[in-house]
Amino acid sequence: MRLIRFKPKGETDVRVGVVENETVYEVAGDIFGPCEKTGRSFNQGQITLEAPCVPTKVVCLGLNYKDHAEEVNADLPEEPLIFLKPPSSIIGPGAPIIYPPQSKRVDYEAELAVVIEKKASHVSSAEALDYVLGYTCLNDVSARDFQQKDGQWTRAKGFDTFCPIGPAIETDLDPSDLTVEAWLNGERKQASSTVHLVFDVKCLIEHISGIMALLPGDIISTGTPSGVGPLEDGDEIEIRIQGIGGLINPVAR
Amino acid sequence: MRLIRFKPKGETDVRVGVVENETVYEVAGDIFGPCEKTGRSFNQGQITLEAPCVPTKVVCLGLNYKDHAEEVNADLPEEPLIFLKPPSSIIGPGAPIIYPPQSKRVDYEAELAVVIEKKASHVSSAEALDYVLGYTCLNDVSARDFQQKDGQWTRAKGFDTFCPIGPAIETDLDPSDLTVEAWLNGERKQASSTVHLVFDVKCLIEHISGIMALLPGDIISTGTPSGVGPLEDGDEIEIRIQGIGGLINPVAR
Repeated sequence: MRLIRFKPKGETDVRVGVVENETVYEVAGDIFGPCEKTGRSFNQGQITLEAPCVPTKVVCLGLNYKDHAEEVNADLPEEPLIFLKPPSSIIGPGAPIIYPPQSKRVDYEAELAVVIEKKASHVSSAEALDYVLGYTCLNDVSARDFQQKDGQWTRAKGFDTFCPIGPAIETDLDPSDLTVEAWLNGERKQASSTVHLVFDVKCLIEHISGIMALLPGDIISTGTPSGVGPLEDGDEIEIRIQGIGGLINPVAR
Repeated sequence: MRLIRFKPKGETDVRVGVVENETVYEVAGDIFGPCEKTGRSFNQGQITLEAPCVPTKVVCLGLNYKDHAEEVNADLPEEPLIFLKPPSSIIGPGAPIIYPPQSKRVDYEAELAVVIEKKASHVSSAEALDYVLGYTCLNDVSARDFQQKDGQWTRAKGFDTFCPIGPAIETDLDPSDLTVEAWLNGERKQASSTVHLVFDVKCLIEHISGIMALLPGDIISTGTPSGVGPLEDGDEIEIRIQGIGGLINPVAR
């Protein structure tokens, strides 16, 4: 199933929909419900996509692909290295990534994001996927200059608009070998697969849920492969993941 | 005005109240509303306190008292050093701080917390206090072993129950010179004043709101003075701030 949140053009309320054969069927309630269709349907041109979920927290992974750790000259962590992006940084497909005037270097980072379906606390890796609603694309936009200066990554990763997610949540995906790509102005800059994750989705859910309770809609972003690079005013950046599709955002000052 | 969130004993819904002369008057709506009394009132023995607000994010400060930076052998940052605690770590007064089995060293940290009243984005220090609802106590509980091991402080500071807040939000306080204390099993371990903050409340709001939009109920915790130390199973830790009162939590395994 392919879940989205959207606004019908000309309307102000955010709706939930399921996408079947390019048609958007509005469903009642939220993305965690039984998906009962309301009877209203739309084609893609009649809607504006919103971020597909509203997390209470976005837990991200540092250095979770070996090739990316090598390109930034960092040792691989012995355990998953987690950090948080604030919910205020989330934007949906098509919304602009705003380049903060304080920074001189803002990078894209293509990542597979896991969306939690139900409260997960001290969950074993064997049961971990039972707590997953589905998967979406996430761009872990990072002000690289502040990441180096601060030590803590909160400012670098936490600016408003620095967490594009979408376009949809795919519920029927095996996360173990999905291609993960970044396309900058139509040129492919990152290309890897989740088969190269240092810590896989099951392991991450076990690790993180053993620290903090994960709630419905919360996101775990699994880290980025090599090929990260800078964004400039006027760029268009697309995160593309096999089975999910493309998350496209313009960059603006 | 002194705002609390509470449950009347025997009831399950969380209510909002104002405290006047030791009496709790239930008010309609949320803590941001006009505080119209419903007509119900309680004495302190008839209620259980809850965390006084429900933030979308908790933005904390590292090394914001000179004496604490010295005791942990860290240089003072040139700019405020921010990190996040997840909302899932919040507990109210009286709730136990659960010592995680993974850690061998969990510390208390007494802090003055600022509660935001209305959306604050790119606010100047001159206008900053217009965006503040009030102030409360926060215990920035920290697994010191993981803080050192991970580099990023998210795990160390993000365990469930590691963010006690309360007991109340005091709206009529000048934050510029308030005593901040930690009392462990009745012994005073931290004693300082917000006059010794490296970056004061106005400066912090300007800095943080220039990075990320602060929303109603969001918390900025202003950092801890010297005297941090370990907690053990069975301890009782109190954070006490002038004009706010004491936030007491037991520690349990």
